[in-house]
Amino acid sequence: MPLNASKLADAVMARCDELAACSEDEHRVTRRFLTPPMREVHDRLSGWMKAANLEPRVDNAGNLIGRRASTHLDRTLLLGSHLDSVPNAGRYDGVLGVLIGVAIAEAIIDESLPFHLDIIGFSEEEGERFSMPYLGSSAVAGRFDQNWLARTDRDGNTVSDAIRQFGLRPEDIGDAEFSTDHVIAYVEPHLEQGPMLEQAGLPLGVVTGIAGQSRLRLEFAGTAGHAGTTPMLGRSDALLMASEFIVEVSSLGRQTTGLRATVGRVAAAPNAPNVIPGRVELSLDVRHVDDLVRERAINDLLATGNRIAKAAEGIFSVLETNANAAVSMDADVSKLLIASIHECEQRPLELFSGAGHDAVVMAERFPTAMLFLRHPGGVSHHPDERAERDDVAVAIEVLCQFVRNLAKQHQPNQVSSS
Amino acid sequence: MPLNASKLADAVMARCDELAACSEDEHRVTRRFLTPPMREVHDRLSGWMKAANLEPRVDNAGNLIGRRASTHLDRTLLLGSHLDSVPNAGRYDGVLGVLIGVAIAEAIIDESLPFHLDIIGFSEEEGERFSMPYLGSSAVAGRFDQNWLARTDRDGNTVSDAIRQFGLRPEDIGDAEFSTDHVIAYVEPHLEQGPMLEQAGLPLGVVTGIAGQSRLRLEFAGTAGHAGTTPMLGRSDALLMASEFIVEVSSLGRQTTGLRATVGRVAAAPNAPNVIPGRVELSLDVRHVDDLVRERAINDLLATGNRIAKAAEGIFSVLETNANAAVSMDADVSKLLIASIHECEQRPLELFSGAGHDAVVMAERFPTAMLFLRHPGGVSHHPDERAERDDVAVAIEVLCQFVRNLAKQHQPNQVSSS
Repeated sequence: MPLNASKLADAVMARCDELAACSEDEHRVTRRFLTPPMREVHDRLSGWMKAANLEPRVDNAGNLIGRRASTHLDRTLLLGSHLDSVPNAGRYDGVLGVLIGVAIAEAIIDESLPFHLDIIGFSEEEGERFSMPYLGSSAVAGRFDQNWLARTDRDGNTVSDAIRQFGLRPEDIGDAEFSTDHVIAYVEPHLEQGPMLEQAGLPLGVVTGIAGQSRLRLEFAGTAGHAGTTPMLGRSDALLMASEFIVEVSSLGRQTTGLRATVGRVAAAPNAPNVIPGRVELSLDVRHVDDLVRERAINDLLATGNRIAKAAEGIFSVLETNANAAVSMDADVSKLLIASIHECEQRPLELFSGAGHDAVVMAERFPTAMLFLRHPGGVSHHPDERAERDDVAVAIEVLCQFVRNLAKQHQPNQVSSS
Repeated sequence: MPLNASKLADAVMARCDELAACSEDEHRVTRRFLTPPMREVHDRLSGWMKAANLEPRVDNAGNLIGRRASTHLDRTLLLGSHLDSVPNAGRYDGVLGVLIGVAIAEAIIDESLPFHLDIIGFSEEEGERFSMPYLGSSAVAGRFDQNWLARTDRDGNTVSDAIRQFGLRPEDIGDAEFSTDHVIAYVEPHLEQGPMLEQAGLPLGVVTGIAGQSRLRLEFAGTAGHAGTTPMLGRSDALLMASEFIVEVSSLGRQTTGLRATVGRVAAAPNAPNVIPGRVELSLDVRHVDDLVRERAINDLLATGNRIAKAAEGIFSVLETNANAAVSMDADVSKLLIASIHECEQRPLELFSGAGHDAVVMAERFPTAMLFLRHPGGVSHHPDERAERDDVAVAIEVLCQFVRNLAKQHQPNQVSSS
């Protein structure tokens, strides 16, 4: 069984290039939910799926699913990722995972499996067109909220309109759901969107969990004043308070293993060069795989904000708070993935994901695991995004091994355990 | 010669209230260069000037000047300030100084003077309508740049248009100039725009100089990145660099006597909550009466910016620099003002002005001094601006004493010395 992973990886890389041309914009990659270039992607992918003995279909959420059916168990292994992109994207985020799935189907085209193999390309993960992420995977996981159908894009089209314009039936979107019993596992190969694998010098990582996230809008209020006449010691400068806070946010982030703490947005008022700022609004984004660590960090930072404001005779306010809990990947599926990596004579890095993925939604219903591929340079959501052919080859080898290991667990003479 | 300063001060306060109603906006004070409410101000002021034996005229820069002519010397003492305001202003900034001038003329209406007395209300000091300050005093000081006539306001009117619409002749604006020989002194009473007099518990201050000012646009450039996936230690966060810088700016300001150092404006890019800022532009405003101290502070802060950027693997750039040197008030005139304060049994505070005034331009040509009045609360350029009737009374007493002292120096039997 000489698997030519390198040759399959070459095809994956070439196909990523080919799909990058399916774009809303002429010289850059932009492909939002069910826009016309998604049709081109479906056409090309369907051809490659058929060549890999996968029978393609499109569900009413616009997901493209290629199935290799089994006559043994009416249960399935889902492999894949998403087909949409952010504006001015790279050529790998999402698409790479789907194409690796197709490559797996090609690699084991002559091997029998005791379950169906579904290679899935989700229609929507980035949340760009309707400011709502995971539209495709939410439908598959039975988590699609019917109210979302009325959301509008910048041109006034609703989600329903978009689905109908693509030739599908929004009223039947419920049919896209997979039952819990039906799914053995969902495994998502995806480019890492950070530098951890590159720093570790390893091609592959297994995701232990996806970080929980807190998003806050904060405000420091002081006293606006004349920059030329107000003595330094009598000032209550809102931008100085915000600056002290930002330094503390970074400091806590550095001191707390695994924490990501970021102030990405700042707005000062009146924001004039000759006026001491009287009010500054800022964002705070805090993430950690351990919800308790994240919540403790938020509490510490809110105390810090209050302390800074009090010392400067200002007022610190929390204007808005949103939070998502951390999501754990399935221990058994991840363990099998790790074992498969070892069997391919590679060393896996166990890491968490600071970014969200379809796996967040899928994990609510199905045993879910994620395989990260090294991301040279680590520049995500950007045309400079890169992936290495050799890393893709290793990922293909590992996932073939994983599918075979899972097949062994589900052979007729084995007791099925999901 | 019992001077009823309190009664005159009551009139000044009532007239400030009356002129506050001459506004472009219905419920707030906004009076920009030669807008219709300036005509109302001229009409009322002209009436009060005539009652004080001053002959009013309007020059072609829109300045209102009431003269009490002398038959002895063809030289003049100029007393006054400006008649325009910022949007949503208080009722004292500028106007108070002109009305105190009129009150002086009333107070000494029966006393003979060996020089002309000109009470001047400058047409423009704030720089609001044409983004250029000191239009009125620049014309009087012979510093009016003819190119300014083509500057436009937000409605597309030029300075020329504004002057012509007011019934004046922009082509003859040069006639507004006073020759150096003709002016004995210019003395400007003005509300302090800071808290120094209030903190000292004194009604009056004599300005030693007007601070020099440096205005810079600075930029920190780092590397934008995903807030969830980029580890804290690998970041080059431009907003963190800017925040460290702002903390250092404040720290240097507190450590350096008399320094004012302010970051009033900040703009981050991409300024999204989930993206580490890659670029931050900020303003820096540094003022001091001693140009060397100011320049040393700027050099220290630029070194600090470079050090911060280097440590974070970022880049620090100076995008733009503007600077005005400090302006000293005339030593002899100021000394006479101080002596007059002592003669009225008051203690003067000698202080510098962090804000600009018509005196900045007038000092370039004429012996110039400024008398500051205590500003309770110190809220400048704001409807809450306040002045105390009793402080105004003291200012009237002191300036009457000053005029008499100056008259003694210019009596026929004295050698004239300016």
